[in-house]
Amino acid sequence: MNVEPYQLTATEVLHKIKAGELRVEAYARSLLARIDARDEAVQAWAYLDPDYVIKQAKALDQVPLSERGPLHGVAIAVKDVIYTKDMPTQFNSPIYAKDAAQVDAGSVAILRKSGALILGKTTTTEFAATTVGPKTRNPHNPNRTPGGSSSGSGAAVGDLQAPIGLGTQTGGSTIRPGSYNGIYALKPTWNSITREGQKIYSLILDTLGLYARSVADLDLLADVFALADDEPAPSNFRVEGAKFAVLRTMVWPQIGSGGAAAMEKAVSLLRAQGAEVEEIEFPEHLKDLPSWHATVLNSDGRTAFLPEYTTTKHNLSEYLVGHVENNTKISRKAQLDAFDSIAAARPVVDNILSKYAAVLTPSVPDEAPLGIEKTGSAAFCLIWTALHTPVVNIPGFKGDNGMPIGVSLVAPRYHDRHLLAVSKAVGNIFEVQGGWK
Amino acid sequence: MNVEPYQLTATEVLHKIKAGELRVEAYARSLLARIDARDEAVQAWAYLDPDYVIKQAKALDQVPLSERGPLHGVAIAVKDVIYTKDMPTQFNSPIYAKDAAQVDAGSVAILRKSGALILGKTTTTEFAATTVGPKTRNPHNPNRTPGGSSSGSGAAVGDLQAPIGLGTQTGGSTIRPGSYNGIYALKPTWNSITREGQKIYSLILDTLGLYARSVADLDLLADVFALADDEPAPSNFRVEGAKFAVLRTMVWPQIGSGGAAAMEKAVSLLRAQGAEVEEIEFPEHLKDLPSWHATVLNSDGRTAFLPEYTTTKHNLSEYLVGHVENNTKISRKAQLDAFDSIAAARPVVDNILSKYAAVLTPSVPDEAPLGIEKTGSAAFCLIWTALHTPVVNIPGFKGDNGMPIGVSLVAPRYHDRHLLAVSKAVGNIFEVQGGWK
Repeated sequence: MNVEPYQLTATEVLHKIKAGELRVEAYARSLLARIDARDEAVQAWAYLDPDYVIKQAKALDQVPLSERGPLHGVAIAVKDVIYTKDMPTQFNSPIYAKDAAQVDAGSVAILRKSGALILGKTTTTEFAATTVGPKTRNPHNPNRTPGGSSSGSGAAVGDLQAPIGLGTQTGGSTIRPGSYNGIYALKPTWNSITREGQKIYSLILDTLGLYARSVADLDLLADVFALADDEPAPSNFRVEGAKFAVLRTMVWPQIGSGGAAAMEKAVSLLRAQGAEVEEIEFPEHLKDLPSWHATVLNSDGRTAFLPEYTTTKHNLSEYLVGHVENNTKISRKAQLDAFDSIAAARPVVDNILSKYAAVLTPSVPDEAPLGIEKTGSAAFCLIWTALHTPVVNIPGFKGDNGMPIGVSLVAPRYHDRHLLAVSKAVGNIFEVQGGWK
Repeated sequence: MNVEPYQLTATEVLHKIKAGELRVEAYARSLLARIDARDEAVQAWAYLDPDYVIKQAKALDQVPLSERGPLHGVAIAVKDVIYTKDMPTQFNSPIYAKDAAQVDAGSVAILRKSGALILGKTTTTEFAATTVGPKTRNPHNPNRTPGGSSSGSGAAVGDLQAPIGLGTQTGGSTIRPGSYNGIYALKPTWNSITREGQKIYSLILDTLGLYARSVADLDLLADVFALADDEPAPSNFRVEGAKFAVLRTMVWPQIGSGGAAAMEKAVSLLRAQGAEVEEIEFPEHLKDLPSWHATVLNSDGRTAFLPEYTTTKHNLSEYLVGHVENNTKISRKAQLDAFDSIAAARPVVDNILSKYAAVLTPSVPDEAPLGIEKTGSAAFCLIWTALHTPVVNIPGFKGDNGMPIGVSLVAPRYHDRHLLAVSKAVGNIFEVQGGWK
């Protein structure tokens, strides 16, 4: 079988480059050809300079073997709300079109030093803070959204234009595009990876997110970003005999037929493999988690967008102007009540999650909706963003229209490596038997 | 009396410029002459380009009256951990000596749009994250530290080299230099002012801080940064008949003779003015607040400095390398316990504070210590940083060696404007009768 380099996962690329079977330049050219062929349909990129990609690739090929980093030559797509010193960062806002920071975000500095090939910047909703989609289309159906706000990274990784990508999540901006594009997505524990150089919406919610087409690739990134649990992750986790829970959440009434079917199938596949799956729910006193999230988000937006509001209000969307002007009239008392209630919920939920290998929960209500104007619902994701827990979207299922749907596995805070180990075993099952290819 | 422009507070400068009695250029030249005369002794600046200051001042003088911002012409000193697009940002680290971000921090963008004259960048400890002092000396005695990490902003405002300044606080980095340099300092409620473009040490602790030589000037800045309580602040707060509390805290054993005397005098001055002053203490279950703060700080440093550790470890201080390598062996469980315990403490302490006009507590153990190698103790400040409450350092007292000592007033979260109103009345008393001039 003739596998083109662009089709490879990061782990496979690394292996071939290490073995001397692939040069970074040839790999870059393969990806650029793929992008060239697909860009008109998908439009995942906010900025991409093919000549500069080749220049970087050639430079990487010159690095002596002994000095190569753990991601040497692996291409990565970077969401355009994360600073790159050699490429503009525009946030899908006219305000920053000509005013790009010439500095690397902390995450990008780590990736670059690790040998990653920074391909370009991927599309986002305005400041990763609205639900109005950018130009990007779902690679599996151009009439549907790739989700957002990490639209471009999700679509690029889903379309084999990059093996891995960086996103961010404040509501559902990493996990939702993961589900819609049929790829793995990790929202790690809050603040376990630096957010330096990543646009702020809400300090207590914003999280860097990672995309890949295999859990092995997420593990590679987790190594580079030094994600570390207290206990070593199981080296060979087996689903058989393991205890899972399914948690439909207080927003289950928003589930669609595709999401419900995916959850049902996921549970039955786990049971068929010999796992025990319990049904659990959030304690009643946490039923307002979604509205607490909204209150914190809107209040934090009041602080976050004051600079743009002050300098160039006319170039800021009405939605974000509304945040700054506090148009929903959230009092400081309500803001603090929500902030403190979420904080109190975190250890409570960790304790519930800690009883299981992982907890299964919807990633999204359904497959990617029609149209690219709106990026879909974050209802299921935002609960976990507030709770700071790691979440992995596992692809494998499909909706009524043949589009991919993923489900989420969740673990307590700082059990990211554990969750990846479990996700690997579960993903193997769902990918093979879930019904989506 | 012949008052030179450099001696004016921001409010006074604004008044004179508005009245047509002072041009920004003349004001800038007065400040530059002051800096020129004093820089060898104080060394508050990490970067200052007099020609560029004059250029900015001339440009401000050209702005039509109708387009002038609320800080038109007011000079400000910016701590060198906060991005400025037209000046290097070096963090007192060799890593960024040649790699400055060409972007304005959110706070700087707001100030610039408001008409502020950005004078230059002021010294800091390495990344505002160590206790090793920069070159700066206390303007009131060159053999003593100005405190840190906002060393330069504190010293510059204390030495009449700038009327107002930006600092940051993760432990005691704003309030401590405020006390040591004999000026007002406001650590506002956490996240009430954007931290976009300000180096990260700990997301949940880092707070932008403000320096001035009058509460009116802090109010000016609070307006520009849109600090807003739920209730309007009292327009004419009177100490007489008001209820205060004095809270010595669990670190009172660390108090020095100067700090103890300042607290005692502060209480007696308030009582002499007809205020009621109760003695209160933190509830016993919060006695570990200082160690929770340390645990969160060290763990967050593990994330924050991984980029510099990865790229240029040899240029990172041993202390910060220790954070990344988790040399104090803090488990994730301990980290989360500390994080969650502080979170649970916040509403409890707000509730205690809400019973008083303000709560009086030490800013520092004593006057600025001898030597510039170490920046002094943050023991009293870090509790409030963790609790997210606004704190104002009120100057007015002096230590055994004639150096300034301030005391802190504290209020519940998002009572910043209320706290400023109270601080104005209290400051008037302490400045006149506290003993330091």
